[in-house]
Amino acid sequence: MATSWDNRYAFRTQRMTGSAIRELLKFTALPDVISFAGGMPAPAAFPIKEFNQACTKVLKDNGEKALQYGTTEGYLPLRDMIARHSARYGIEVTPENILITSGSQQALDLLGRIFINTGDRIVVENPTYVGALQAWNAYCAEYIPVPFDEEGMITTELEKTLRSGPKFIYVLPNFQNPTGVTLSFERRLQLIELSEKYGVPIVEDDPYGQLRYEGENLPPIEVLDSQIRAQKGCYSGNVIYTSTFSKTLAPGIRLAWVIAPPEVIHKLVMAKQGADLHTSTFSQMVAYEVGKDGFINEHVKEIRKIYRERRDVMLDTLSEHMPEEVKWTHPQGGLFLWLTLPECIDSRELLEEALKFKVAFVPGTAFFASGGHANTMRLNFSHPTPEKINEGIGRLGQAIKGFITRSKQG
Amino acid sequence: MATSWDNRYAFRTQRMTGSAIRELLKFTALPDVISFAGGMPAPAAFPIKEFNQACTKVLKDNGEKALQYGTTEGYLPLRDMIARHSARYGIEVTPENILITSGSQQALDLLGRIFINTGDRIVVENPTYVGALQAWNAYCAEYIPVPFDEEGMITTELEKTLRSGPKFIYVLPNFQNPTGVTLSFERRLQLIELSEKYGVPIVEDDPYGQLRYEGENLPPIEVLDSQIRAQKGCYSGNVIYTSTFSKTLAPGIRLAWVIAPPEVIHKLVMAKQGADLHTSTFSQMVAYEVGKDGFINEHVKEIRKIYRERRDVMLDTLSEHMPEEVKWTHPQGGLFLWLTLPECIDSRELLEEALKFKVAFVPGTAFFASGGHANTMRLNFSHPTPEKINEGIGRLGQAIKGFITRSKQG
Repeated sequence: MATSWDNRYAFRTQRMTGSAIRELLKFTALPDVISFAGGMPAPAAFPIKEFNQACTKVLKDNGEKALQYGTTEGYLPLRDMIARHSARYGIEVTPENILITSGSQQALDLLGRIFINTGDRIVVENPTYVGALQAWNAYCAEYIPVPFDEEGMITTELEKTLRSGPKFIYVLPNFQNPTGVTLSFERRLQLIELSEKYGVPIVEDDPYGQLRYEGENLPPIEVLDSQIRAQKGCYSGNVIYTSTFSKTLAPGIRLAWVIAPPEVIHKLVMAKQGADLHTSTFSQMVAYEVGKDGFINEHVKEIRKIYRERRDVMLDTLSEHMPEEVKWTHPQGGLFLWLTLPECIDSRELLEEALKFKVAFVPGTAFFASGGHANTMRLNFSHPTPEKINEGIGRLGQAIKGFITRSKQG
Repeated sequence: MATSWDNRYAFRTQRMTGSAIRELLKFTALPDVISFAGGMPAPAAFPIKEFNQACTKVLKDNGEKALQYGTTEGYLPLRDMIARHSARYGIEVTPENILITSGSQQALDLLGRIFINTGDRIVVENPTYVGALQAWNAYCAEYIPVPFDEEGMITTELEKTLRSGPKFIYVLPNFQNPTGVTLSFERRLQLIELSEKYGVPIVEDDPYGQLRYEGENLPPIEVLDSQIRAQKGCYSGNVIYTSTFSKTLAPGIRLAWVIAPPEVIHKLVMAKQGADLHTSTFSQMVAYEVGKDGFINEHVKEIRKIYRERRDVMLDTLSEHMPEEVKWTHPQGGLFLWLTLPECIDSRELLEEALKFKVAFVPGTAFFASGGHANTMRLNFSHPTPEKINEGIGRLGQAIKGFITRSKQG
């Protein structure tokens, strides 16, 4: 009998677990299940026509270049477009500060690759984006979770974590995945001040910054940091910024970018050479063709309209269907909302119950670097239609009420 | 004055150097330089029309799926197509044995990620593909180079390397990069036998297998290994196979695949989730659309015609222009030819001279895991046109003759 590879071969020792979210995506394929589990954009928001026109133009005018190997740094006109686009939000950079990556997940992976030795500590929000934990587990990172409330990371709790010399502070300032919470202006300033005081860089992950449905835009941490740097000559510049086209154009083309000082970009380029040589030339040229004349800014207005309606439907139906012990966040943008159940409820057990009602969500515990907080869940409102949200939150309300009642009886 | 990141921040300790090849690509951009340095396919061989039709069809029929997130394993119809395609070469697998990767470079990276702990040894051909060294340097691999001749890795020298318990044996059996050499049938069998005896898996990297211009196809190591397994019930199955669309369709779409036992695929999928979530859905669907009706097999015939002519022109002009101390390989396929200079010549110094003659190549030393062999170089014949090859080899001959003469005088 053949021995299995698992027994015969010594796989590398590392902490590497499948993403709870991606395992759960299996449920979403079941017929009739309404899923709030994924993090997918609405397909109705994809600019299919514009992509088709761009593909034709790129292949007709520049096919030999589009199908050939390209540079690791990325397609220069696209990096230039991103620089111009970023300037609208106050981020003043040149293409030398920009690396194109194969999705934001690769940006996180490459940052792990250039910074993290086994046992290095990373400061994270509690909860934080599970994909970041997954990327950095491969490099055997340790995490220092910082308490979190409705204004984001509690920066007064941050200082003591910095004394132990972590490699960087990871923060999602806008409409955070998983909670939908936005880091307040005051805390952004405190974060920058502490980062400079302790010489610990900030990794600012901003996939959703443009998807604000109410309230005032807050300046990116990168911008505030640059302003302080401009005022103080001795100041270092502490921010590595990353964003993506996954939410403003389409995730299926796997295009994102990192903005950083040239020395960091240089290290990332070397890491990317070993990881995948470069990101698809064709995808980059098509994205440039779609975006070059300002299309993205117009298109984002449409996306905001679609998602704002869906968020509002979810907030309204939650008010209608949830028992009063259940609390949830009011995200001003993004794709997600965070729901907190009574402490006695384990949302992983609730999920089994919910699936009987044909509705799915992500149990919250996977988003906490040290686990726990089993009474939480993440709900996505960008992918299901308003009708599905209405129906699905109704089902979830039923599942939760039944579960709470039985828990009290049990 | 701002302190630089290089000084302030502790980047990860790892052996990570920029690829000599990619650094040299800078030379190829100089006007009038004829470059044999890259490893690029001929743009004339890109199926631009077919890509355009496929893009239009995919976006029209299936745009919402093509632009959405996909599964980490890859697009199922594409994996199914690869399984059918592989069966033509005797590789009998199902989609469960196949992972789609973002180019072969990512396949190498993910293999490093699941197998290599710091200091683990990898058996490699001497010389070997520099991109593999670059991928595994990030995981702090050590290498055991096995001597190499015109029949490939000298398998009688292999056994002693296996006693030290290396993680795997890395081999490019067909028209190897950088030498163009093919591993003989007898050595394939010996390699498999030793792999089974010592329980060390083989990673078979086969980007060029379909690009044979003369001689008989040899069965992939994976196929020979499966045949032996079928004969002996207790046999384990020792091969992880990887190939790519970069040479048969186009490298700019970054599509390759790994074929392996399901337990290995499972580990690779978890590693890929952390690395880039998944490879572009759009690229995968377009490649499937281009390839699904047998186009690739027909197209490869065209590519073989183009490259065979270029190889022949290079072999002819080398005979015409090189002094008799210079030797080179006669590749039966692939993209590269390997040239050996008199031992006193350092091809890195020669490169500076050659650039004065407006011709470029890759000095051979980068392909040796332990360095040395400075009197070698790699020449690419797939990218330059026959006219450029003719002219470029003439220039290279002049440069070499002058250099040898001056070396003898000096």
